[in-house]
Amino acid sequence: MTVLILTCRQDVTADLVVAELRELGVPLVRFDPADLPDRAALSTEYDRGDFTGYLSTGGRLVSIQGLRSIWVRRPGRPAAHAANASEWLTAECGQALYGMLYATTARWMNHPGAAEPARHKPFQLRVAQRSGFAVPSTLVTTYPRAAHDFAVRCADIVVKSASGPPSVDPPVSLPTTRIGPDTDFSDVAAGATLLQRYVPKRADIRLICVGQEVFAARKTAAAGQVDGRFGCHGHRWEAVEAPAGILHSVHTYMALTGLAYGAFDFAEDADGVWWFLECNQGGQFGFVELETGQPIAAAIASWLAAPHTVRPPHGASPVDGPEDRPAVGRPRLRREQPH
Amino acid sequence: MTVLILTCRQDVTADLVVAELRELGVPLVRFDPADLPDRAALSTEYDRGDFTGYLSTGGRLVSIQGLRSIWVRRPGRPAAHAANASEWLTAECGQALYGMLYATTARWMNHPGAAEPARHKPFQLRVAQRSGFAVPSTLVTTYPRAAHDFAVRCADIVVKSASGPPSVDPPVSLPTTRIGPDTDFSDVAAGATLLQRYVPKRADIRLICVGQEVFAARKTAAAGQVDGRFGCHGHRWEAVEAPAGILHSVHTYMALTGLAYGAFDFAEDADGVWWFLECNQGGQFGFVELETGQPIAAAIASWLAAPHTVRPPHGASPVDGPEDRPAVGRPRLRREQPH
Repeated sequence: MTVLILTCRQDVTADLVVAELRELGVPLVRFDPADLPDRAALSTEYDRGDFTGYLSTGGRLVSIQGLRSIWVRRPGRPAAHAANASEWLTAECGQALYGMLYATTARWMNHPGAAEPARHKPFQLRVAQRSGFAVPSTLVTTYPRAAHDFAVRCADIVVKSASGPPSVDPPVSLPTTRIGPDTDFSDVAAGATLLQRYVPKRADIRLICVGQEVFAARKTAAAGQVDGRFGCHGHRWEAVEAPAGILHSVHTYMALTGLAYGAFDFAEDADGVWWFLECNQGGQFGFVELETGQPIAAAIASWLAAPHTVRPPHGASPVDGPEDRPAVGRPRLRREQPH
Repeated sequence: MTVLILTCRQDVTADLVVAELRELGVPLVRFDPADLPDRAALSTEYDRGDFTGYLSTGGRLVSIQGLRSIWVRRPGRPAAHAANASEWLTAECGQALYGMLYATTARWMNHPGAAEPARHKPFQLRVAQRSGFAVPSTLVTTYPRAAHDFAVRCADIVVKSASGPPSVDPPVSLPTTRIGPDTDFSDVAAGATLLQRYVPKRADIRLICVGQEVFAARKTAAAGQVDGRFGCHGHRWEAVEAPAGILHSVHTYMALTGLAYGAFDFAEDADGVWWFLECNQGGQFGFVELETGQPIAAAIASWLAAPHTVRPPHGASPVDGPEDRPAVGRPRLRREQPH
């Protein structure tokens, strides 16, 4: 039973997990969908109710029936490296590859059907509320007046991008920026804007959840620092124990979203409260492992290598066998009771 | 409780459903995400565990809390009509809109997390096999030799696109084309190719499933006709009763994929067998309704208008209340037993 890792060649973080899988003696294939069809090949056949499939890359041939799990790390766009690359070739090769992979019974970290909603920050904030996290007051709006009123009410806010910086060359950074109520909000009408109450923080927290395992790291913040990703200030990431309430909320969040992997960011305030900022379903863990020594790559490898017997997180269907995969992709938010 | 219809202005098929909803007296808002942020506005606020949201379009203001259901018909790309349109503006407005909508408890037809895998033809073929449909032998491959061997084995095959025709200007059509084993398959190496055993058909079948309701239509095929979409030959669509076995398979297919709407295509052979060709999760129904008089738009309107009490298709989770939504987005294919 083979582990399939979908990622690009430049992804050095995946190397950590590859090394752990080799240590475990688990067969694996690392594959970049961008290599289709020039440097990789596939074939799927449907005949009399049967289904067989093969993927060939780097001199390895893997049977789709023998797939244990699929790790969606940093895959390139299908056929992006092809000599005759085009949008249509990408669409055709994407159909062939993902259509084949969806049809397997392999476990996914993360299934694209679960990852799609989970990528949306406004959705993350709502799931975080339902999971019991402390969530800073947040406004996502195209109304300058609403933005102004929110800024006045909170007095001290930050503005940040929901989707990240634009893909431009040369690359630009778009750090979370602190602003006040006297800001001119008229440009809010030109694009949806995410505003959030500023949380004065004494530390940044990055928490990685891998299946049921949780690894948390803490980095002391410089005075007045807003965006922990920018500005070197001499502090380093250190392993930290996640409080029991946080652990409970993390597991609830993962169950509600159907994710197998999540990278949570929190701001720790002066009272020690961890304020939920976001959960990146594909967020980095390498820097946490390197600085704290926590065995995150080993946990990912163990999850990927685990035998094919996962119970659905919310109770099995009567028609499901024990080897069925959990149903994910759609959150299980409950309709609130009227007050 | 309002129905939200996500579609572009040119979508006349949606008009049929709008008229039915008006007939039912159900409030609705029709909205094209491309209109953000110039001709439509939104605002979502998260405060102390609460979540409120509004969407404003065409002079209507709808509360997100009051959303009954969301119909994803033919939505434009977010902010595509904006004066300052860009990839980044699309990403930011998409985050704001879909992040807000995913956070609601509305029912979806279809939820994007379920639609994403269901769009892949090779996945459809596997689900169809597991649902008990007759599926013609099919090969999806980048191996010229495999394509050649398949053609020899089947003797008579068709080639078709998995993703549809390329988006080019002027538009091109890409009809399913019948080929023989003497074809030169060397170009298969340049792009994944879908080959299928040719089913000599006496009729095309289009079957629309809306929740639990099924509408089937049949059109007699001209002698030797391959692709029912091309070539006018005097036959019209007529309502037809779907056999009990087909109904059972349709409901299984919908449950496995988590879809609320699906447009199935079959080829009916000389023995009356309906061969599964594909299930388009967003396929057209308007021509079937217009030619056969079947009340499909009314069925869609009823589904969208139904009260907010849907049971998960495969048994409720212990933590779910009766008003929870079904968990979808990931198929429930079972691992097969070894022979």
